[in-house]
Amino acid sequence: MDLPLYEKIANQIEQQIQEGIFLPGVKIPSVRKSSKQLEVSVATVLQAYSLLEDRGVIKARPQKGYFVQENRLKLSTELPLETVKQEQSVHALLHKLLHVSQDENIVQFGAAIPKSHFLPIRQLQRSVGRLMRLEPEICAEYEFTPGSLALRRQIAIRMLDSGCQLQPNDITITLGCQNALMLALQAVTKAGDTIAIESPAYHGVLQAIEVLKLNAIEITCSTVTGLDLDQLEMANQQQDIKACIVTPNNQNPTGATLSHQARQRLIKQSNDHDFIIIEDDVYGELSYQDKRERALKADDVYNRVIYTSSFSKSIAPGFRIGWIIGGRFQAPIEHLAYVQSLAIPTLTQTAIANFLENGAYDRHLRKTRATYQENLARCQEQIKAHFPEGTHTSTPKGGFLLWVSLPTDIDTMKLHAQALEKNIGILPGLAFSLHNQFGHHFRLNYALNWDYNTDIALKELGKLCYQQVSKN
Amino acid sequence: MDLPLYEKIANQIEQQIQEGIFLPGVKIPSVRKSSKQLEVSVATVLQAYSLLEDRGVIKARPQKGYFVQENRLKLSTELPLETVKQEQSVHALLHKLLHVSQDENIVQFGAAIPKSHFLPIRQLQRSVGRLMRLEPEICAEYEFTPGSLALRRQIAIRMLDSGCQLQPNDITITLGCQNALMLALQAVTKAGDTIAIESPAYHGVLQAIEVLKLNAIEITCSTVTGLDLDQLEMANQQQDIKACIVTPNNQNPTGATLSHQARQRLIKQSNDHDFIIIEDDVYGELSYQDKRERALKADDVYNRVIYTSSFSKSIAPGFRIGWIIGGRFQAPIEHLAYVQSLAIPTLTQTAIANFLENGAYDRHLRKTRATYQENLARCQEQIKAHFPEGTHTSTPKGGFLLWVSLPTDIDTMKLHAQALEKNIGILPGLAFSLHNQFGHHFRLNYALNWDYNTDIALKELGKLCYQQVSKN
Repeated sequence: MDLPLYEKIANQIEQQIQEGIFLPGVKIPSVRKSSKQLEVSVATVLQAYSLLEDRGVIKARPQKGYFVQENRLKLSTELPLETVKQEQSVHALLHKLLHVSQDENIVQFGAAIPKSHFLPIRQLQRSVGRLMRLEPEICAEYEFTPGSLALRRQIAIRMLDSGCQLQPNDITITLGCQNALMLALQAVTKAGDTIAIESPAYHGVLQAIEVLKLNAIEITCSTVTGLDLDQLEMANQQQDIKACIVTPNNQNPTGATLSHQARQRLIKQSNDHDFIIIEDDVYGELSYQDKRERALKADDVYNRVIYTSSFSKSIAPGFRIGWIIGGRFQAPIEHLAYVQSLAIPTLTQTAIANFLENGAYDRHLRKTRATYQENLARCQEQIKAHFPEGTHTSTPKGGFLLWVSLPTDIDTMKLHAQALEKNIGILPGLAFSLHNQFGHHFRLNYALNWDYNTDIALKELGKLCYQQVSKN
Repeated sequence: MDLPLYEKIANQIEQQIQEGIFLPGVKIPSVRKSSKQLEVSVATVLQAYSLLEDRGVIKARPQKGYFVQENRLKLSTELPLETVKQEQSVHALLHKLLHVSQDENIVQFGAAIPKSHFLPIRQLQRSVGRLMRLEPEICAEYEFTPGSLALRRQIAIRMLDSGCQLQPNDITITLGCQNALMLALQAVTKAGDTIAIESPAYHGVLQAIEVLKLNAIEITCSTVTGLDLDQLEMANQQQDIKACIVTPNNQNPTGATLSHQARQRLIKQSNDHDFIIIEDDVYGELSYQDKRERALKADDVYNRVIYTSSFSKSIAPGFRIGWIIGGRFQAPIEHLAYVQSLAIPTLTQTAIANFLENGAYDRHLRKTRATYQENLARCQEQIKAHFPEGTHTSTPKGGFLLWVSLPTDIDTMKLHAQALEKNIGILPGLAFSLHNQFGHHFRLNYALNWDYNTDIALKELGKLCYQQVSKN
């Protein structure tokens, strides 16, 4: 962390080159452009480029600029191929994406954030307003970990629908589902441990893995059947896997939901091979069918499942209210959550508890899910009509995310850049793996107010895809 | 974590014995009592006690109960004396204390939480109410890390008073100061590293150290001059210290404020010995003098200071809004904060930004500080009048915490238990160290509405102290 700035920049560029972002022979951004992009002085960029020349990574051509060396080994680091990461680029990508995720001028197919139209804003407004009128002391009072009892009670009631019989004390309130996943990983693993994850996986999991210095084995997650349990079995036979992060319902980004048999097998496997299942059920309540799918936690006969979820996808993203059911790890998880921040805000916890108590949530969910299903149909229709042959989409049974697979010669990083110029956001497939894969996939958020402009934007995306096909 | 329950309980009790909570020859709680306290079956406690008998730690005496073996070595673990911890008991203590910290029937000398009377509740009420009326979409929108720009701007402006010239981009919003301290420690250290801390120290720091598996060297912090820099110098000569956590202004619990010379010396030491200063300035704005003391960060010539603070002590504890200025660690800290939870709630951030913008904060602070100073005087007066000879109190120049040193034969754990029976909360000195020290100290929160009952409660505490003196 204490490297001089120019060396950090040099390392970053070298990594991008190793990851194939800049291929051999390709021109890298000019000194002036890099200086602007990275917000550092021209002198610093020159220093960085000169260091890269010294390392034999790039070569200056007079009057032309800097180019990636043609004859370099593809991977010159000591890392084995499997663990080469592309953090820098994916982080930069996600950062950019989130940065523009509230820009009204951009069609927000990118981030997995529902438009406020799909959230019970009016009810929350009333709930917060009433709280502030009647109990303004709520600003002063702590709701120490594990969090508001009223809220935990409501969660326990709601979770009956997922097949889980819980007491409020089984639940710890967290700062959204990301925070719950982090706490679960921290409780179960230490740096250097290996965990299994879905591939493609939610990008927040990939970032957690990196921050916690874990090793990850990516297990194929199909759009139809979800996690490949044969692969997981094999991985477990070969390595000591501490935990497996699974999204059994409406997986992000594939939309897959595990079958009953797969769930049984997964739970048995966790016991046979002594690993912990970290269940991410953040899309569980958004199933299109009348009755939501069960949680894995509901069939947790071996007490090996840690359940995580949040209200960020269905009530209030900005409130950051999630929860975790730690099972055998409940005590250490609760303690970790406490030491992390003592408490999370009282106001947001209480407002959601009040909203759940007044019973409007189920009505809200029914309406929202119906619209998502309509949007999905329209979306698939448009893609069928306007995208090149060889394009496939997932068939989610819930949630609001579509996984699109394009013909293999289409580069969705490029597509993303071109689309953003036309004020269309998408999330390229590269963001969903630690390896250099899903380069011709992207994820599409359809929790939007679907209108003429949305249709046009999808058509536009299709056109950009055709352009890439014809060029190749 | 997967030990059988009875073994865990046995280990816990053994640790308590090693820490001197139960001395050799002393009777430990009966099986029935432990079963109730620990909420486990009598059978499990019997199993635990039987295991401890096998280990030679305790001995059963027929009809009398279980006693700590007289002839055991004082410390039978492989841990050196310095790192023996007393987590279990202190955690239990703090847990209990926080649990009752909102009980209206208890005189809250214990937790460092100002009564709502000292917080700008009305203004926050208006601020939240207005936000909900005008911008209800705030429930939906994320304020991704580093957090609300408006809030960071206000913080940068306020920090001019502490001598710091900052840009909003130097600041990351956190979930209170505890969260900021955790992020700082995570960025600077890894498990097994050694850091220096004040002794006595804020208990949240002690818990963070334990969770992050760090080693801590406790450096004496006097009530008058604060951190002992000779000791720190010596520690640095003997060990590789990665960071030192310092509260330069109105330290918790001693109330000490570092002199100008001490600050200069500390900063020079950090450079000479290559360690990072983690500054906890959460009481910095509560100095009784007109102009607040400078932050260490203001004189951070070597870029070695990470600054942490929050509004929990002066605006809204329940909102959990803190911040961190990472200096050379800004990028990794911001990334860590992002991966921890993506964002912290938009509503609470924006409400505080609005409150700061309307300029009422300084007026509020002036009034509050004046009352704290009055309460302090009254508090010291009462203690002088009603406590045994040999009682000493600190002389804080800001904040709302008093550190009370009683005659050495008074046990403040016992005092705490007796006081709580009379609905008086205090925080015993044991909570402020990883070692078994400050057993005759306690901390007293005077951010209370001082009235007749508060006076009576202090008198009562004094009486309990006298009882212990006369018994000894």
